[in-house]
Formats: sequence, C-alpha cells, structure tokens
Amino acid sequence: MNLASASRALVSEDFIEDLRAIVGDRLSTGASVCEQHGQDLTYHPAAPPDVVVFATSTEEVSRIVKLCAAANVPVIPYGAGTSLEGHLAALRGGVSIDLSQMNEVVSVNADDMDVIVQAGVTRKQLNQHLHNTGLFFPVDPGADATLGGMVATRASGTNAVRYGTMRENVLALTVVMADGRIVHTGSRARKSSTGYDLTHLMVGSEGTLGVVTEVTLKLHGIAEAISAAVVPFETLEGAVNSVIQTIQCGVPIARIELLDEVQVMASNLYSKTDNPEQPTLFLEFNGSEASVREQTELVRDICDENGGGEFRWSIRHEEREKLWEARHNAAYANMALRPGCKIMVTDACVPISKLATCLLETRRDIDESGMLAPIVGHVGDGNFHLTILLDPEDDNAITRAHALNDRMIRRVLEMGGTCSGEHGVGVGKMEYMEDEHGEGVAVMRQIKQALDPQNIMNPGKILPAR
Amino acid sequence: MNLASASRALVSEDFIEDLRAIVGDRLSTGASVCEQHGQDLTYHPAAPPDVVVFATSTEEVSRIVKLCAAANVPVIPYGAGTSLEGHLAALRGGVSIDLSQMNEVVSVNADDMDVIVQAGVTRKQLNQHLHNTGLFFPVDPGADATLGGMVATRASGTNAVRYGTMRENVLALTVVMADGRIVHTGSRARKSSTGYDLTHLMVGSEGTLGVVTEVTLKLHGIAEAISAAVVPFETLEGAVNSVIQTIQCGVPIARIELLDEVQVMASNLYSKTDNPEQPTLFLEFNGSEASVREQTELVRDICDENGGGEFRWSIRHEEREKLWEARHNAAYANMALRPGCKIMVTDACVPISKLATCLLETRRDIDESGMLAPIVGHVGDGNFHLTILLDPEDDNAITRAHALNDRMIRRVLEMGGTCSGEHGVGVGKMEYMEDEHGEGVAVMRQIKQALDPQNIMNPGKILPAR
Repeated sequence: MNLASASRALVSEDFIEDLRAIVGDRLSTGASVCEQHGQDLTYHPAAPPDVVVFATSTEEVSRIVKLCAAANVPVIPYGAGTSLEGHLAALRGGVSIDLSQMNEVVSVNADDMDVIVQAGVTRKQLNQHLHNTGLFFPVDPGADATLGGMVATRASGTNAVRYGTMRENVLALTVVMADGRIVHTGSRARKSSTGYDLTHLMVGSEGTLGVVTEVTLKLHGIAEAISAAVVPFETLEGAVNSVIQTIQCGVPIARIELLDEVQVMASNLYSKTDNPEQPTLFLEFNGSEASVREQTELVRDICDENGGGEFRWSIRHEEREKLWEARHNAAYANMALRPGCKIMVTDACVPISKLATCLLETRRDIDESGMLAPIVGHVGDGNFHLTILLDPEDDNAITRAHALNDRMIRRVLEMGGTCSGEHGVGVGKMEYMEDEHGEGVAVMRQIKQALDPQNIMNPGKILPAR
Repeated sequence: MNLASASRALVSEDFIEDLRAIVGDRLSTGASVCEQHGQDLTYHPAAPPDVVVFATSTEEVSRIVKLCAAANVPVIPYGAGTSLEGHLAALRGGVSIDLSQMNEVVSVNADDMDVIVQAGVTRKQLNQHLHNTGLFFPVDPGADATLGGMVATRASGTNAVRYGTMRENVLALTVVMADGRIVHTGSRARKSSTGYDLTHLMVGSEGTLGVVTEVTLKLHGIAEAISAAVVPFETLEGAVNSVIQTIQCGVPIARIELLDEVQVMASNLYSKTDNPEQPTLFLEFNGSEASVREQTELVRDICDENGGGEFRWSIRHEEREKLWEARHNAAYANMALRPGCKIMVTDACVPISKLATCLLETRRDIDESGMLAPIVGHVGDGNFHLTILLDPEDDNAITRAHALNDRMIRRVLEMGGTCSGEHGVGVGKMEYMEDEHGEGVAVMRQIKQALDPQNIMNPGKILPAR
C-alpha cells in the first residue's frame, strides 16, 4: 500500500544531479533504500521518498534544503527509522535526509554536565561514549533511536519520572529551517529569559519546522548506589495502585515500569527471562546508599499493601542491564509473538490520579475486543502503551484496533490527558489534534505557515488537512 | 521622562466608552494610576498607558483584546508591576490590562501535585493557600510577583537549582491571543508529544504574543527535613568555587545563593540581620533526615577547603523564613542604600565552569568603575546580578552603568551564556538579542508577525526595531 500516489512533487533528473553535486555518492534512488526510508516500525503504510541523501554536515543539510525549497520538493529527516506514528512516510515524495552519518559526539563538557552531539548519534552510542565520565544521558525510548529523532518526537522512556523527557533535557539546538537558514537556539547556560523559546518549539516538531542537525543535552551524574527489582502482583489494580502511591509519597524513584501478564509472557519468550506471568513492576532506585535504602523500604511497604509478591533484585550492573534490555525490547518481543503481524502502539498519558481507572477500563476493552494487546507503561508519568498486534492484510483487524485505540483516547482526553505521551503525532494521531488542543491547532497552523510557507518540511504530519 | 510621545495610538472617547461597556467602573484614565502602570522597579523610564482596566475573567480579557485589535490599540498586561527591564512601559500608549483582581486559586489537585490559578495570584498567596497540603510552589523571584507575570518573564529564583524555573514548572496555560481568541495550551498530563509546544512558546514571551489569564503549575512535596545555613568566606573566589564544586559533585542542594560583602552590608541594614560583612553563601538542604545529613557534610567539607567560616544554622521554620526574606528583599535593600536612587539590575547567566572567571572579572570592573553595585546570585544556576545604583537625573551615571553592564554581557556571551537568566528582555536587553541569538531573532520575528500581525501586544519589547 502506497499513500504517495497522488500529488507527488516533481523530482526531475536535473534536481537529482543538483543534489549529487552536494552529496556526491551519498545518494540513492534505489527502490529498497527508498522503501526502507519511508516506513517505521509499525502498521503505518510505507510511502517511499524519491531519493535518499546521506548528509554529513549542517552546511550540507542547509544546501540540500535550499535546493528543495527552490524546487518545492518535500524534505523528510530520517534518523534510525524507529518512530511509531508514520512520521517517515514521504506522502508527497521528495527527499529523505538520512542523518545517521552525522554521528559524532562533538564535545563532552563534564564540568557543566552537558554534551554536544550531531543529530545522528544514538542514545546507546552516547552512553557508551560517556563511559568513565561518571555521567549519563537518561532519556531512553525502547529503540536505539538517534538523538535528533528523539528531539523531533519529544521522546521519553523509563527514566523520565526522575530525570525528565527530551523537553527537560535539551539545552540548545542547531536547526536548518525550511529556507535553508541555519539557526542556533538556546545556549549552554542552564536557564535563560531572552526571547521566544525556539528550542522548545523545535522539540516535538517532528521535522515539520526544520531539520535538527546538532543537539546540546543535559547530562546527569550516575548515582552512587543503584538497585533494580522486579515485583509481581496478584492483580493489575494492585500494581497500578502501588505506582500511584509511590509517586504521591514523593519517592524519587528512578524507574517504575508496568508490564501486564501478557507483556511479561512476551518478554520472557523474547529476552529469555523467567519472570512470573503476572502483572509486574520493574523498579529502579538511584541515590546514595542511605537514600536507596530509604526508598526501597517505603516502596516495599507500599507494594506489600497492594498484593505485591517477593522482590527479585538486580544489584550488579550486568543483571540490571539485562533487566532493562528486556524492558526496552518490549515492542520487538511483541512483534515476535506473531511473526508477519504489524503493530499499532497506543500512547495514553493521564494525570496520575486517573491512571488506575484509565488503565483498568482499557484492559477491560482489550479483553472484550479479543485482540492481542500487551500493556506496558512508564506508569510513574501516567503513561502506558498497548501494542496491538495486527495482520496488515486484514482490514477488519485494523478497524477493530482503531476502535480500541479511539475508545481509549476519548477516555484519556476526558480525563485531562494527552493522546501521545512520547511517540508524537505523525499521521497516526492527527485526527485527535482538534479534540486535544481546540483553537491551539489554529495557532500551530499559523506558526507552520510562517516558518514553512511552502509546506515542504515533512508535509502531512501533525496538522490535519482542513 | 516619557518615551511615549511619538506615534501613540489614538485612544478615543468612544473607545473608552466601549471599554467601559465591558468592565464598568473597573477602568481608570487617571494620571497617577496610568503612571504607576507604565513603570517597573528600575531606572527604566515610565511610559504610561492611556487607560488601565482591571479584568476579572478570561472572557473579559478576550473582549478587551478584541476591541483593541479592532481599533489597533496596544495591549500591555500588568501583574504586580515588579519586572525589571521596562516591560510595562506603554511605548505607544494603549490599554494596560491589570490582572491583579484575577487572583483566585481555581483548583488544587494534591493527588496529581498540580494547581490551577488565575494569572493574578501571587507566589506568596499561592504558597499560603497550599498551607497544610504538604505541597509548595518553588519558583520565587525576589518580589511577590504574580504567577502570570512570572510566566511572562520565564522567572526563576532561589530554588531553581533544585526545582527548576517557570520553564520546568508550567504544565498548561490559558492565553488570550492578539485577536482575542482564547487558547488552552498543554494539559495536566506530566508529558505530551502532541504538536508544537505552545506552552513553552508563551512562557517567556513577555506579553508580546498574548495575555496569560490562567496557569497550571507543578507542585512539589515539602521535604521531610529542611535546614538552612549562612556561611561567610574569606574571599569571593572561595565562595564561588564552593558553589561550583557543590554542583559538580551532584549534591541535590535546594538553594545556594551568593551575596558579596556589599550586598551583605545592604541586607543587614534593611533586614536587621547581623551577618559578617564578607562574601557569603546562603544554603538550604532539603530531603530525608539522612539525605540532608549527607548533603550537609559534603558541602561543609567543600566550604572548609575554600576558606569558608563557621556555618550559622537556621533549623526552625521562622528562622529560615527570616533568612530567605532577607535574600528576597535584596533589591529593596539596595534601593534603600541611597534613597532617591534608581536601580539597574543586570542578569548574567553562564555555564557553571565559567562562573568564577565571569564573576571575578566583573567584580574587578565594578571596583574600577567606582560605582555602588552589590552582587547577588543564584549561583547554582550560573546566574548572578549586579544592582547598580543610579541617580536617575545623572546621565553620566546611566552611561557608566550601561558601560559596566555592556562589558559584562560581552563577556557572558563569549562564554556561551545568556544576557538574561531570569528577568527577560523587555526594552533593556533588546540591543543584545542579535548578538545572543543571531538568525534566531529573525525566526522570532516571523512568529511575532504570524501571531500578532498588527503588533499590538506589548509593542517595542523583546524584538529590536529593524
């Protein structure tokens, strides 16, 4: 299925030659490369770009975008291809700018606890690079995404409850705007009150306002003591209530992740773990020895009161790595449950006081739907996902999955929440933008119109057609 | 001195009558009310609006702004009048919308640790309202500003090193746009990836994009243990280096404030305290008993190594209140040093590794200038202020003060910092916007043009005339 049949931009031979004059051999019009660059990890239909270029510098990206602007050709930035809402589909064709070769860590400023990276550096690569500095970068979506891509989707992950999301951890950006201008937003100062917050405008803009080429990030000190645990519960309700009470008690927990019994089963199979197939929390405590002890005791009491079982501890670094690797691979584990199936990943986020109701009603909907949809969640933030497994050839399955997601999103919005906690809008959530933001969507359109009047930057994403 | 002589908008009798139809008696054209609403706490010249209206609801603000838009009359939002960069000057006349009567705490959601307030609620009023909830709102500029005003300037204060600034603590806003539309940005969910971050675009926009009428804020739990201390140092360098080492060690200190010996002297006089007239740190530790003990020991060792004297502790609530009240009143204490003088408050913020050099070189400039300019700073953020005392009738003094500030700002920008950590641009920092943001200023202009094409929202602020 290819959405890009209508109203494609005209990418001429001359245009390709002009591109080649900028990037040389780092260009492909091959079907498989284009196909791969127009799809993500999910059921969203692929829409290949006309051409893929592999950029190596901000200046090069600027020249490419200027060329596209002059020819009115769409630009779709590409990082690791791990997004989940159809962000990469080249709906009107155009140029996919692959930034994966811009993968240099430009400078580590340990004294200021910040780092400057090119947009193609991945989160794992960055943390490997920081090895031995005593510092780490906490934001960790499941996939090994690029930091540019994580800026684009305003990503978060398991550490957000303690360390914040990309929103809280980006200090400054280099961005190529829709006309090819290079703009530097923000600074390495920890705070500033000078003018409009262009950094935060770009974080979460999904390539629709510009191409992020360089990112300055906050780093955090690795805690003196770290311990992680897995704790199974008799009921999903008990697990969720333990999370809510932990947050409401103000425990500075580093990670508190929920997996329902279906997700535990899938993860056991994929990651060769042997956790009891029950609703389960994965926990991590960071701090001084004394602080970790205090936090642990408090959370153990809370879990006990809510029907939690025995804590299975991972103290050693390697054990913890294995535990969190299993959590990070949840989406891949689910895909492996039914080979050939595609996934639709939902992304509800509600105020924590609404989490139990929202999650339990949603679980009831899943059970009634008869669909296979493991639940996993960054529940400390009020955020959880269903991974709905779909036969992509079965239109009925897609319809039923949409209905399940739609029902959940209506619930979430009524509760004052958001239809995407961390994955972004892409094409998948566009239909809910008016419901969530009302008149705010008109303001977003005014900004898009002002900064990308030709609508060449990742067109067809975030803002629904009128 | 009145900057507003040229190019004033035409505010007719009919227009005033139309305003009166909306707000009734809550309107004044009296000279003293207008004069008061066109000035702030500093040397910046006043520029009175033509009329002041006291709004009581978002809908009313919307109607007022629609009227102004139709008549092309400027709108200047007014909170507590405590800003520092000429933000309130009605440079082209127009309507000052005073929001101080919109001072209702709309709802406290203790379970979700958030609160919804009208824009006219002040920070002290909010914390009094939260009394007995176990929660508090941390952002604390010196003055008892309104929360709407604090949104407008992206304010911070003494707690920012631990709890963040307004940037990190605003979840959602209600904003009346330049055409009178009412827009709700953000939500009570702790994170979201749905579309452009309009909340952060409005935070720090200084009334130039819209009028903030309602604010949803994060709250924080009051720590189990809190202790505060004052510690004098032999040298300014020793005090600054203690701060840098504390931050670099990752101590989760709640407050770490620097006062030079001139500021201590001024504060002693004004607040009737008796701290030794030496470079001094005001510290506060929050956490569990064990954590506070750990933090204290570490910081005491660091201060000892840098020539710090004895810690003078404030354990009881009332003692701590007195200590921080003295700190918050630093600007007033400085004004009292030379009655009749006005103040110019500078606002450098640099990466922490540059703080010692920046501060010590600046102190040398002060000494060479012969001006009276106490130094105070939220040094954990790399942010410090000079309060330069000025005879407003002495043009030469203003010129010398500008030269001192200018030299410091050049230094700050070379170090990768910002010319305003927390006060905003207003008219006072406009001339540095291009130097700090380069091409970013053009992007800001595009956004301003898109959202306020008539340029009626607080005109003449943030963006320098071309």
